[in-house]
Amino acid sequence: MQIAIVLFDRFTALDAVGPYEMLCRIPGAETVFVAQQPGPVRNDCGDLALVAGKGLEEVPTPDIVLVPGGPGQNVQMANETLLDWLRSADASSTWTTSVCTGSLLLAAAGLLKGRRATSHWLAIDKLAMFGAEATGDRVVTDGKFITAAGVASGIDMGLSLVGKVAGDEYAQTVQLATEYDPQPPYDAGSPQKAPAVLVDNLRAKRRLILE
Amino acid sequence: MQIAIVLFDRFTALDAVGPYEMLCRIPGAETVFVAQQPGPVRNDCGDLALVAGKGLEEVPTPDIVLVPGGPGQNVQMANETLLDWLRSADASSTWTTSVCTGSLLLAAAGLLKGRRATSHWLAIDKLAMFGAEATGDRVVTDGKFITAAGVASGIDMGLSLVGKVAGDEYAQTVQLATEYDPQPPYDAGSPQKAPAVLVDNLRAKRRLILE
Repeated sequence: MQIAIVLFDRFTALDAVGPYEMLCRIPGAETVFVAQQPGPVRNDCGDLALVAGKGLEEVPTPDIVLVPGGPGQNVQMANETLLDWLRSADASSTWTTSVCTGSLLLAAAGLLKGRRATSHWLAIDKLAMFGAEATGDRVVTDGKFITAAGVASGIDMGLSLVGKVAGDEYAQTVQLATEYDPQPPYDAGSPQKAPAVLVDNLRAKRRLILE
Repeated sequence: MQIAIVLFDRFTALDAVGPYEMLCRIPGAETVFVAQQPGPVRNDCGDLALVAGKGLEEVPTPDIVLVPGGPGQNVQMANETLLDWLRSADASSTWTTSVCTGSLLLAAAGLLKGRRATSHWLAIDKLAMFGAEATGDRVVTDGKFITAAGVASGIDMGLSLVGKVAGDEYAQTVQLATEYDPQPPYDAGSPQKAPAVLVDNLRAKRRLILE
C-alpha cells in the first residue's frame, strides 16, 4: 500500500507528520513524501525542512493521497501541475485525504464538488466557493474523501484511517504504541471552546495566518 | 530565544514535530534542528527525513533543549559526543526537555539523577537505572526539566511549555490556531485504557519497538 504525502513550500509540519505517524505503521505501508521537485521542502515557520523523496510524476498511482495545509497552500491553488497530479492520483486512489487548508487544494482540483468536507476554522467558508458543503466536524468522511479540520486534527484523521484500512484493533494498537491519550493543559482548541477575545484576535489576523 | 531540537538516526518524527509545532510559535523563537552532522536525518520508519540545519557544536547554548525518542535512542546512549553536548547545553539552558525515550538520553547524561521524570510506558522502568524517579504522569516537570511520556504526549508538553514561557493566554491562542482539540476515534492511548490483550502484545514486542 503506497501512501503519498504532498509537500510544498510553507506547508504546516504537523499537518503532514501527525497523520504520517499513524499511517506509516499500517502493515506493508510505504510512505512517500512527494513534491514538485524532490529534495528539502521548507515549512511555514521556515526553520524546518522535510525531504521529499520523489517528484510528483514519479508517484502516479498512490493508494492513499494526503494533502497537508499551511499558508503556502494559497500559491498552490494556481499550480496546475499540482492540481493535475491531484486529479490524476485521485482517479486511482483508494482514499484521498487532507488536513487543514489542504482541503482547499482538493477543492480547487474539483474533487470536492457536492461533497461534505472540512478545513481549518478560519478557512472553512472558502470550501463553498468550490461547490463543497462545509461541515464543522473535526474529521469528515464522504465516500473515499476524508478531510480534517486544522493542524492537530490530522492525527485523529490518520488514526481513523488506520482503522478503516487495518481494522479497529490494529488502530487501537497504534494509538497505544504512540500514547495518543491527549491531555491538553488548556481547553481552547476550537472557536467554540476558546475565550471569545482570542477567537476574535485570530479572526482579525486571518490573512496573516492563512497567507 | 533559541530552541534546539536534537535529531539522530531512527528518531520518532512526531516526538520532535509535535512539540515543535507548538514551540515554534513562541514570539521571537528561533528553532534549530541539530544533529551530530548537519543534513538529512532519517526516522525510525525510514521513509521520512528531517533536515538538521546545524551540527551540535554550532549550537552550544540553546535556551530550550528538546530531545525526542525513538528506537535509535539506544545507540545514542553510548554516544559520548551527544551526551557531552547535552550536559554542556543543559548547563546554561532555561528548560531541558524530552519526549518518549528521549528522557533516557537525558538520564544517561546524568541530568535526571534524583529527579522525577517519565518516558514511553514500555521504557519507563529504565529511568530508575540512572537514578531518576519514574512517575506515570503524562508530562512531568521537576525544576527546569520537563519530560513527556510516549510519542504524542510531546504535544501536551510543548503546549504546556509555551504557557510557561509566553503565558497562558498565548498558549491558548496557539492551541486555537492549531485546533488542538483532540477527538481520538478510540480510547486506547494508555496501558490503563487499552484492551489488556493489546497491552500484552506490545509488551511481548517491546524489544522490537524500542530497539
